[in-house]
Amino acid sequence: MTVEQIAAKLQAHMARLTVKHVTIIGAGLLGGSLGLALKRRCPGVHVAGVGRRESSLQEAMDKGAIDSAHLDAVEPAGRSDLIVLATPVGAFEHYLRAIKPCLRDRAVVTDVGSTKLAVVRAAARILGPAGPFVASHPMAGSELKGANHARDDLFEGAVCILTPTARTPAWALGQVRRLWRAVGCRLVRMTPSGHDGALARVSHLPHAVSALLTMLPDGADLKVAGPGLRDMTRLAGGDAEIWRDIFLTNRACLLEAIDRLDEDLMHLRDLLEAGDAKGIQRLLELARRRRAQRINQSGPSGADPRR
Amino acid sequence: MTVEQIAAKLQAHMARLTVKHVTIIGAGLLGGSLGLALKRRCPGVHVAGVGRRESSLQEAMDKGAIDSAHLDAVEPAGRSDLIVLATPVGAFEHYLRAIKPCLRDRAVVTDVGSTKLAVVRAAARILGPAGPFVASHPMAGSELKGANHARDDLFEGAVCILTPTARTPAWALGQVRRLWRAVGCRLVRMTPSGHDGALARVSHLPHAVSALLTMLPDGADLKVAGPGLRDMTRLAGGDAEIWRDIFLTNRACLLEAIDRLDEDLMHLRDLLEAGDAKGIQRLLELARRRRAQRINQSGPSGADPRR
Repeated sequence: MTVEQIAAKLQAHMARLTVKHVTIIGAGLLGGSLGLALKRRCPGVHVAGVGRRESSLQEAMDKGAIDSAHLDAVEPAGRSDLIVLATPVGAFEHYLRAIKPCLRDRAVVTDVGSTKLAVVRAAARILGPAGPFVASHPMAGSELKGANHARDDLFEGAVCILTPTARTPAWALGQVRRLWRAVGCRLVRMTPSGHDGALARVSHLPHAVSALLTMLPDGADLKVAGPGLRDMTRLAGGDAEIWRDIFLTNRACLLEAIDRLDEDLMHLRDLLEAGDAKGIQRLLELARRRRAQRINQSGPSGADPRR
Repeated sequence: MTVEQIAAKLQAHMARLTVKHVTIIGAGLLGGSLGLALKRRCPGVHVAGVGRRESSLQEAMDKGAIDSAHLDAVEPAGRSDLIVLATPVGAFEHYLRAIKPCLRDRAVVTDVGSTKLAVVRAAARILGPAGPFVASHPMAGSELKGANHARDDLFEGAVCILTPTARTPAWALGQVRRLWRAVGCRLVRMTPSGHDGALARVSHLPHAVSALLTMLPDGADLKVAGPGLRDMTRLAGGDAEIWRDIFLTNRACLLEAIDRLDEDLMHLRDLLEAGDAKGIQRLLELARRRRAQRINQSGPSGADPRR
């Protein structure tokens, strides 16, 4: 595709996203970036930001990511045709309950959470199984925190996973598809549990391991640590509150992934203890091939599976 | 230090490294890079390369990393005042036995292996406890293999760990210190077992985990994998034969590190199973702090703990 064709395609998507008033709950990196992207691509839209702390709302205002700042979600949500949950996953249920009574007809609720089954279940409980909620997971982010690091191109080229259910209203799904396309995402559709299993294996377990690898070296060891350890512990720099919620809302899948890693670790342990040179080489060869042929080729470039 | 001061210091080191004939056994990335660095910094030195395959020796010749190519170590080693083992660690013992009868008076033997206790013990057995062997581990390298990727600045700024014993002759240690300083390394001295324990925690265990993380995702998962998984599996791209030898010659320390990681993994598992939000957050906070305050600050920039 030429640049012109891409621009034309984007234009087409933008034309189809018709929102006048959006509420973004959680004015951090993702919420702020979504605000910036919407304001660039849908001129005239009003973006209301909701947060717990005045300071982070002020940051988002200063950055130009939101047009109005609110400590309470009810008032702006009641005016909005689109509401996006962008807090840590653990706070979604609270906000869904808070906004439920004030939702306008044809208003759509979506989210940016990294786990989907718990979120979909909570939304079905609170807004009803055929309620106007469409779960989404735009795979963008960075270790940087807060709206002052927000970027209007954060979602460009990123994969956004949508996990509608059989009861999700088609009009709501259509609106959320238009939202993410408008900000530049490539859409992938999965079931909520398919999403959570895959993310446990490609993102949540690697994050957990990254955190655990920081624990072993003592101060003296670090004199001889190099970029390998730095790379392997980069994910551990992520926000503890966000990741606590991810781990807890994806508990079953993460436990399964931990058990599989533990089996593999014990297998390697057995090979080592037995001094099985051939077995160790076979394992390392397989890893090298899987890495080269599959992992290194895969995935959206520039996106980050952190959220 | 100014550039002039650095240059003067380098000059001083170069002046003190007086070698006329060097044999490098193993004409891969490290051996080839050492050849290039020596030829640039010690004009007039003859670098003999020893390898098992004509093709890799030819590569090293084409690159200008060696002056003569040999399938047998005995003849060039008998002429050399410095012999460097740069094969996978598992082949060191074979070559030490081969060159022993032909070593000249005051010839020094060193190595570039990633594990030290097994190497030091083998050298003591073969060359005698006070033999002219000084174990060293220059922490440089990359995933790239072979002399055609050799660079004359590969060792510049890298940490080189020396692990002499109480019986190592001072003149031999002095010569090997001059060698690594001449090619730009910063020297760190450790005991062989201190080295192996530290490297197991900062390099060998992370490498093992990187390999194991490639095993979990299936083909469908990789659609939603991003840079996080790619970073966490980068080390797994390393050469299987080199790493097989590292794992086997550092078996005891690696087993201990695996057991500690396994304990930590089971602790996280317990926290998850119990739904202990505070415990999980505390663990992730600690990891984030350890990463930010210690790991991210540490280590030689530009070096790679891979070898």
